[in-house]
Amino acid sequence: MAVIALGIDPGTASLGFGVVALEGDRLRLVDAGVVRTSAGRTDAERLADLEAALRGLVGEHRPDRIAVERLYFQRNVQTAMAVGQARGVALLVAARAALPIDEPTPNEVKQAVCGNGAADKAQVAGMVGRLLGISLAGAVDDATDALAIAIGCLYRAAAEPRTATPG
Amino acid sequence: MAVIALGIDPGTASLGFGVVALEGDRLRLVDAGVVRTSAGRTDAERLADLEAALRGLVGEHRPDRIAVERLYFQRNVQTAMAVGQARGVALLVAARAALPIDEPTPNEVKQAVCGNGAADKAQVAGMVGRLLGISLAGAVDDATDALAIAIGCLYRAAAEPRTATPG
Repeated sequence: MAVIALGIDPGTASLGFGVVALEGDRLRLVDAGVVRTSAGRTDAERLADLEAALRGLVGEHRPDRIAVERLYFQRNVQTAMAVGQARGVALLVAARAALPIDEPTPNEVKQAVCGNGAADKAQVAGMVGRLLGISLAGAVDDATDALAIAIGCLYRAAAEPRTATPG
Repeated sequence: MAVIALGIDPGTASLGFGVVALEGDRLRLVDAGVVRTSAGRTDAERLADLEAALRGLVGEHRPDRIAVERLYFQRNVQTAMAVGQARGVALLVAARAALPIDEPTPNEVKQAVCGNGAADKAQVAGMVGRLLGISLAGAVDDATDALAIAIGCLYRAAAEPRTATPG
């Protein structure tokens, strides 16, 4: 049976998402893209737009797990605040759907996908493309990152000890 | 007719709220307190608890405006991220309720309430208590701050030029 993960690269102006299925030991691309919100709308409206988009993705793909990247490395507090607001909305949607949530750091994602926490963007994109059997040449960074986040989430889930079925 | 403002001092572990009505030129305390979330729950669950509490406050008091403090002065990026997540949820609740949103900085709040952007906590608490005709001696800082945020929001709204009634 397939396990489906939704990976999210959070941001208020642009939020990357990637949906990947793990079927046996094969990864399959389900969906990927970027939710862009209008600069003409207020922060609150943009967050509401993000929430609607994320609820739509959860409803459409019914993921088993969600991973929302945890960012420590922001250049400044203002950026961290904006990313935090988008993360808050993503975590809220995940909590409402009662889904297990991973919050990997960028280094953990690179380590999971490339075996190297210091891999650069091109290495991550190359490995994500190879694992999914697709070319990511024209893909937006945020979508590629989100796919890497989803793949790392699936690998982590597969490595977890199985819980015994109750009863 | 009274105008009611909900002021929010955002945080994931503890979120202060204050509800104040402006009737003519008189301010009246409607409600104030702190939403505390359990450290035993995940960030996502805590955000969902905050959202439920905020929706409850909006449903109960039907505010005309919401003010969510905008914090720039966080000591570190990690704190800014956590506050950002809580702000994101508060802004989302406000957007869903289609309410006008203020996002004042702490200095703007102090300026509006005390006429001095550099006022200290005791000065703010003293002025909030005087304006509302109550004692805030035993009140939690977060609740007092949220009341100051609500009062600043009402003053700002009162100073806005009235929109002509259409038709």
